[in-house]
Amino acid sequence: MRAAAGKESPSSSAVGGTPLLKDELDIVIPTIRNLDFLEMWRPFFQPYHLIVVQDGDPSKTIRVPEGFDYELYNRNDIKRILGPKAACISFKDSACRCFGYMVSRKKYIYTIDDDCFVAKDPSGKEINAVEQHISNLLTPSTPYFFNTLYDPYREGTDFVRGYPFSLREGTPTVVSHGLWLNIPDYDAPTQLVKPRERNARYVDAVLTIPRGTLFPMCGMNLAFDRELIGSAMYFGLMGDGQPIGRYDDMWAGWCIKVICDHLRLGVKTGLPYIWHSKASNPFVNLKKEYKGIFWQEELIPFFQTVVLPKDCTTVHKCYIELSKQVRERLGKIDPYFTKLADAMVTWIEAWDELNPSGPAAGVVVVNGSSNGK
Amino acid sequence: MRAAAGKESPSSSAVGGTPLLKDELDIVIPTIRNLDFLEMWRPFFQPYHLIVVQDGDPSKTIRVPEGFDYELYNRNDIKRILGPKAACISFKDSACRCFGYMVSRKKYIYTIDDDCFVAKDPSGKEINAVEQHISNLLTPSTPYFFNTLYDPYREGTDFVRGYPFSLREGTPTVVSHGLWLNIPDYDAPTQLVKPRERNARYVDAVLTIPRGTLFPMCGMNLAFDRELIGSAMYFGLMGDGQPIGRYDDMWAGWCIKVICDHLRLGVKTGLPYIWHSKASNPFVNLKKEYKGIFWQEELIPFFQTVVLPKDCTTVHKCYIELSKQVRERLGKIDPYFTKLADAMVTWIEAWDELNPSGPAAGVVVVNGSSNGK
Repeated sequence: MRAAAGKESPSSSAVGGTPLLKDELDIVIPTIRNLDFLEMWRPFFQPYHLIVVQDGDPSKTIRVPEGFDYELYNRNDIKRILGPKAACISFKDSACRCFGYMVSRKKYIYTIDDDCFVAKDPSGKEINAVEQHISNLLTPSTPYFFNTLYDPYREGTDFVRGYPFSLREGTPTVVSHGLWLNIPDYDAPTQLVKPRERNARYVDAVLTIPRGTLFPMCGMNLAFDRELIGSAMYFGLMGDGQPIGRYDDMWAGWCIKVICDHLRLGVKTGLPYIWHSKASNPFVNLKKEYKGIFWQEELIPFFQTVVLPKDCTTVHKCYIELSKQVRERLGKIDPYFTKLADAMVTWIEAWDELNPSGPAAGVVVVNGSSNGK
Repeated sequence: MRAAAGKESPSSSAVGGTPLLKDELDIVIPTIRNLDFLEMWRPFFQPYHLIVVQDGDPSKTIRVPEGFDYELYNRNDIKRILGPKAACISFKDSACRCFGYMVSRKKYIYTIDDDCFVAKDPSGKEINAVEQHISNLLTPSTPYFFNTLYDPYREGTDFVRGYPFSLREGTPTVVSHGLWLNIPDYDAPTQLVKPRERNARYVDAVLTIPRGTLFPMCGMNLAFDRELIGSAMYFGLMGDGQPIGRYDDMWAGWCIKVICDHLRLGVKTGLPYIWHSKASNPFVNLKKEYKGIFWQEELIPFFQTVVLPKDCTTVHKCYIELSKQVRERLGKIDPYFTKLADAMVTWIEAWDELNPSGPAAGVVVVNGSSNGK
């Protein structure tokens, strides 16, 4: 672990009306290469502390551009810090990023891939992704009724006629799922079939994923409330020694969504966009994905029907309960899911070790409404 | 009832790749005034047959611009055609439009208010609302899993990584809910609080309302498959002699959504936009709405928990069953709901009279999947 002091952070505490939260948000970046991509993000990321999770060969030196305040963890660091529990952190897969969630001491996390650059909105203005994520997280979600003009808390819009007044207070937002221009986040079969497809459509909207609806959460451009949902944001067992890859963020997305639905917490998707520069190799991806592609057909019905008991009043309790149901109901698909269920428990134990009096363990939800916010 | 022969329709059968469906779609317009607004719509509406439902004083003559092919019904016509069953058609309220759905002989309906004009997209191009609605209706919906890049059937996009392959066939789309630029569709309290708010945001997206999620359906710019869902598209009892107004489209939206969810049919919202020119009077609206505003707090939990039995395999059966549950569960809120439940039954009887061998009555849904499409 190394740390480099950053330049003095700007003293402004808000950009465009959105609080900067510079002491309350860490940026987590999984990588195997020098972080030159940060140069483009400098105006937006430099105020924040970075947590770099180095994947692959720990003897390799990852270069971080001057002036960023960061800490970096390689595989040796992870093993030293977690001991045998390090087994729950994936290796040779970007799923390793979730170690960064665990060691952060901040309320919020923004995580981004190192092949993602600053996108421009239709007016040509560079998009401050962190600012938009913060805005998404600081305004409520509306999972119980769909608002046809999208996020009602956004400037210039509201709840439309027919939206029940009792639901207009909304519910705390704990996840903000951002999108990508240029290379879309397709699976290997779609990549193979549509090698030239690029996402050029800027959809100027943020919306709540309704209660009871699952979605494919991509970890490329993702922010969340670490205090309220971080301990469920486990990216599973992927990559080295595991039968699948590229389902790390999906797995986390399905887990957090059923827990959010149970605890009455909100998940938003839409803005901000980042510019995704590089398509991964579809042949390599197919090898990583192929088991996931058919397992998924059983995983979705599982997550669609998971019921968490009423006494699961915290994210921790929900996650432990979910691990039990994974073991019982998915273990028969493949021994991998038994191993994954074990890793889910290990993850929670490791989380608790590193966050002994962390708020996540203590958030008590009474009568389905969180007191933690 | 009067009919004026239109100019010869254009012979082209498709615009921009979308079938024109000129012999399969009627445009239904409720009005109390001369239809000068049609001049602006001429390039887009002239190929279609119009059904004008004249509200208010039947002795007044409504002028329709030259060259449109239309039929017009005033209150006297409705009474003559439906006899005592005319009581189910609202008077002095735009809910009267649903009479037009009943007398149409086409597969699709597009309905629009007479204070709605052609909107422009961000490039300045005039939006052909009918074409976009047809495109929405002719491509499937995806109510069982959220696609983060919105409508996956749209050119230039697809299902993202993690979207289950077994769900990519989608489900038939039966409702396309379009939006409005300029004057947003707000309730009276929001109109009063934000008199100057205008919707200037063009959100370039169409999306499926997920299964199990209700939405506020606005009748201002709405298209649907009359054959598959028309008989449930009843706009209720509003206006003259009724305790509420401005909940006609909302009521229809809640009814059709629970029926679509049950029958595995899809509902989309988003594009196309129209330009909504004139805000209605918020004081008048408040008077119409105020009972709805608090009744609605009981209606939403009702619709969120309605369960339709498995033997409700057609829209008709679903609608009759829904009328029973309205009577039983909502009748105790106010005698109005008993009257409404009666009117729902009358509506179905009237529909059957005018559509004796209509496809709607005969659509059989087996195992939750419609055979009608």
